[in-house]
Amino acid sequence: MTFPVETVRVTSQLFPPHVQQALDLIGIFVFALSGGLLAVRKNMDIFGIAVLAEATALGGGVMRDLVIGATPVVAFTNLGYFVTPLVAATVVFFLHPEVERINRSVQTLDAMGLGLFCVTGTVKAHDYGLGSVAAVALGMLTAAGGGVIRDVLAQEMPSLLRWDREIYAVPALVGSSMVVVLIAAGHLTTATATASALTAFVLRVLALKYGWRAPRAWHRNGSRTSEE
Amino acid sequence: MTFPVETVRVTSQLFPPHVQQALDLIGIFVFALSGGLLAVRKNMDIFGIAVLAEATALGGGVMRDLVIGATPVVAFTNLGYFVTPLVAATVVFFLHPEVERINRSVQTLDAMGLGLFCVTGTVKAHDYGLGSVAAVALGMLTAAGGGVIRDVLAQEMPSLLRWDREIYAVPALVGSSMVVVLIAAGHLTTATATASALTAFVLRVLALKYGWRAPRAWHRNGSRTSEE
Amino acid sequence: MTFPVETVRVTSQLFPPHVQQALDLIGIFVFALSGGLLAVRKNMDIFGIAVLAEATALGGGVMRDLVIGATPVVAFTNLGYFVTPLVAATVVFFLHPEVERINRSVQTLDAMGLGLFCVTGTVKAHDYGLGSVAAVALGMLTAAGGGVIRDVLAQEMPSLLRWDREIYAVPALVGSSMVVVLIAAGHLTTATATASALTAFVLRVLALKYGWRAPRAWHRNGSRTSEE
Repeated sequence: MTFPVETVRVTSQLFPPHVQQALDLIGIFVFALSGGLLAVRKNMDIFGIAVLAEATALGGGVMRDLVIGATPVVAFTNLGYFVTPLVAATVVFFLHPEVERINRSVQTLDAMGLGLFCVTGTVKAHDYGLGSVAAVALGMLTAAGGGVIRDVLAQEMPSLLRWDREIYAVPALVGSSMVVVLIAAGHLTTATATASALTAFVLRVLALKYGWRAPRAWHRNGSRTSEE
Repeated sequence: MTFPVETVRVTSQLFPPHVQQALDLIGIFVFALSGGLLAVRKNMDIFGIAVLAEATALGGGVMRDLVIGATPVVAFTNLGYFVTPLVAATVVFFLHPEVERINRSVQTLDAMGLGLFCVTGTVKAHDYGLGSVAAVALGMLTAAGGGVIRDVLAQEMPSLLRWDREIYAVPALVGSSMVVVLIAAGHLTTATATASALTAFVLRVLALKYGWRAPRAWHRNGSRTSEE
Repeated sequence: MTFPVETVRVTSQLFPPHVQQALDLIGIFVFALSGGLLAVRKNMDIFGIAVLAEATALGGGVMRDLVIGATPVVAFTNLGYFVTPLVAATVVFFLHPEVERINRSVQTLDAMGLGLFCVTGTVKAHDYGLGSVAAVALGMLTAAGGGVIRDVLAQEMPSLLRWDREIYAVPALVGSSMVVVLIAAGHLTTATATASALTAFVLRVLALKYGWRAPRAWHRNGSRTSEE
């Protein structure tokens, strides 16, 4: 039940601490922007903006930490993780038309967060002794979970699940899978972890650029046109 | 805070391990089918189908494990538990018209999952030192929680809460309550646990067959006809 | 990973145990009433009423306990905490028109729950070693989290996030912040904790009386009138 602390391998220390912290904060900031923008579109007040920014930015990591038993969860023990979404919420509160205007840039930054979080989530799950498949799943949960919570709180169909949105799960799946293969091969380094994050990032940017979508259920693609 | 490992009683080992595993996987598979089918009806893509299958099949057990502090949660440490919903998602992806056609059979299988999960959930909660009432509640959470998560993710009113759906909570309540009474009486065995699961299963099948529903609030049954 | 038990400071024992328990149960009862009433309005059956009462009353505390790693969560180990919402659900089932009629009183009682829970949630988070900002956030989560779960389960936009509802977050923020300042100053006593809870309570009651609302995003207050 209690996680045996001594078996934690510190593969998670891929980057110098301050680099890791900076990368995490960038990812948290851009995820929080996407939450704050949805809150503005939904006509929420300043607290709704702050709550949705926090939930989007930290939700994936919180769920990962709960599942692996890493409590208190890091989102509440690292002050920077918690304060960054409030900064993003403040930016959105005052400058949302400007942020909307650079939405393409926000989506690109969001793709950076996706790449980074699927890698760090996978590594942390592995550090806690989970197997390869579970580590990949938790990497994807870290990257995509916050967006699902954001959409549920805002009463929207989660965009992760919608067929008419560009693929989000595949880039995370590829990035996370690269990490577990690299770990198994004993080749996970700062360089290869960065390559994994970049691969996920590039795939997501290409999906946005070329409108890549995933197939719906067999037989269904040609039918039910009324819903399309 | 830390759960005292030495007090865990192994009443949870009711069945030989391979029998228990097989029963669990059957329950997980049929729950996953119901999640996948809803995803198809909601026009989701292949990843939406997989996510909803996973969430429906494993959500109840994950919430139970989080509440009792059994981390890392078993859904992520037992490879079979995680992979089975992906198999169900694949089946639904290719064969959803056929699966819809045998929907009555799927509902019967789902009732099997209900019976099994309310029993194993109650036993596991008791193993972790929770009292009788809490163990019953966690048995019901294990059996019904995944379906609630499924409906929330798909933006549907949870069918567990709807008055116009056949009762789901009562069969789980009866099965879980039988287990805690049997534990208190010192008579929980493979045979009596099976009987508890079968009782919940039969009650659910009868509820489906005869359209048993639970009452709405007093005074309300005759009024507000516009919503009925 | 494992929480170091020996660092838990028992500042949480602000009141004599039976007083604390009585206050907690009052807060749980009134939160459960609000969940039950929404279930009736949504035309749910008796089980939907019970589930929504439980989720509203206990959801905030459960999320707090999960985040700080206090498992098994207290909502499932303290029998009174679990049974009280069922009593509230029974009251709502039989007497919902009467409870609706005294809705103003229910809202006042709910404000009492808000005041109490933001204080006890903050203190418990601090006892588990979390920093001041995180403790404030967890006090707010304890006070407001159950209501968010209630609204998500009932397919409503969370009222916490809606600009057209009286402020709920600010009273909790003020009460929780008073607690961490008092802790830092070494002045947290039964009297000052009560004063913090009362401050949150009074602010919420005033917000309800005078219709205090929080601002929406800059530039937006005068525009988009079609949504107002």
